[in-house]
Amino acid sequence: MEKTFTLDDILGMSQAYRRNLMNTISGYKSANLIGTLSHAGVANVAVFNSVVHVGATPPCLGFMLRPLTVPRQTYHNIKAKGYFTINQIALPFFEQAHQTSAKYDEQTSEFDACGLRPQYTAACPAPYVQESPIKLGLQYEEEHHITANGAIFVIGRVVEVLIDEQLLGAEGHVLLENAPSIAVAGLDSYYRAELLARLPYARPK
Amino acid sequence: MEKTFTLDDILGMSQAYRRNLMNTISGYKSANLIGTLSHAGVANVAVFNSVVHVGATPPCLGFMLRPLTVPRQTYHNIKAKGYFTINQIALPFFEQAHQTSAKYDEQTSEFDACGLRPQYTAACPAPYVQESPIKLGLQYEEEHHITANGAIFVIGRVVEVLIDEQLLGAEGHVLLENAPSIAVAGLDSYYRAELLARLPYARPK
Repeated sequence: MEKTFTLDDILGMSQAYRRNLMNTISGYKSANLIGTLSHAGVANVAVFNSVVHVGATPPCLGFMLRPLTVPRQTYHNIKAKGYFTINQIALPFFEQAHQTSAKYDEQTSEFDACGLRPQYTAACPAPYVQESPIKLGLQYEEEHHITANGAIFVIGRVVEVLIDEQLLGAEGHVLLENAPSIAVAGLDSYYRAELLARLPYARPK
Repeated sequence: MEKTFTLDDILGMSQAYRRNLMNTISGYKSANLIGTLSHAGVANVAVFNSVVHVGATPPCLGFMLRPLTVPRQTYHNIKAKGYFTINQIALPFFEQAHQTSAKYDEQTSEFDACGLRPQYTAACPAPYVQESPIKLGLQYEEEHHITANGAIFVIGRVVEVLIDEQLLGAEGHVLLENAPSIAVAGLDSYYRAELLARLPYARPK
């Protein structure tokens, strides 16, 4: 049976129920760790499910940050240092990745606390997650503040890609199913995915 | 072996290779059909992989639209009518959903052309996709133009949810694996997902 919720129904739900519903109702999301470096040199890493493609030329990605009602280490570090990394979560370390969502103080590196290893390159002054098979280094590009709720859409320009070369298809596709990459719904539900089909470019029939 | 691409390497790739790489490299995405109504009453529907959660209170979702270098029916209709729908793609109709990405003229309804059925309610003057088990009606809220490339981040406020009640978990989670919902990578790679775990709220250990 199809159930209907009005806006009043949604606003009348408990906060936890509404949060779970609204976070999962738009489907599977990418599971990524965003790495940053604090002004004191602490390597920060946190799980994000909102990374989206913004454009290929220049290569840009964006992600949502919650409103700045409390200190946000990831945002603060990106603004202070100008760089961040996006690291895809894969099956062997998804539980450590989830643990980075715990509230550690800013002197604590989530790398140490969660059993992940930082990795640095000359091109990107922010920590990559060594365990990840698909890593992106980005330079801060721009941000947009959402009027409706104070959330922030942050955009970075890709300056470096580190990828297990076995995951690169002949036409540039990343073979996520071989990573194997994790998909996530909401803040807590982790999935493994299986390829159904790569469909050809669609034309009117 | 880990392969490194610099920004120059990325910009030196063929356009098709770079597009495939940059669209798939940030991981699995939600597969949704966005439904709109034209000023002439034609029901439009198109596939989008960039829907993200913006906030639960008020309930808002956003998605990326490509730059307005050519007419964009979805954008035009949302601006003209003020409403749109987001409909999750499920296994039984993912090939019809992909076919909506073909370039039909604006007099042609992709519903008719691709074998999908529009569904209307009193609360939302935009067409839902009847085949979808998880449907959202949204009112246009705001938009942000990306300086880096002219893309547009469109945000809507959820005014109605239509959902198969068997897909609602006790705490508000949508059980995507039972829909069964589709995940997508880039513009062409469709996946089915299997639940690994719902992990508890993380706290420092």
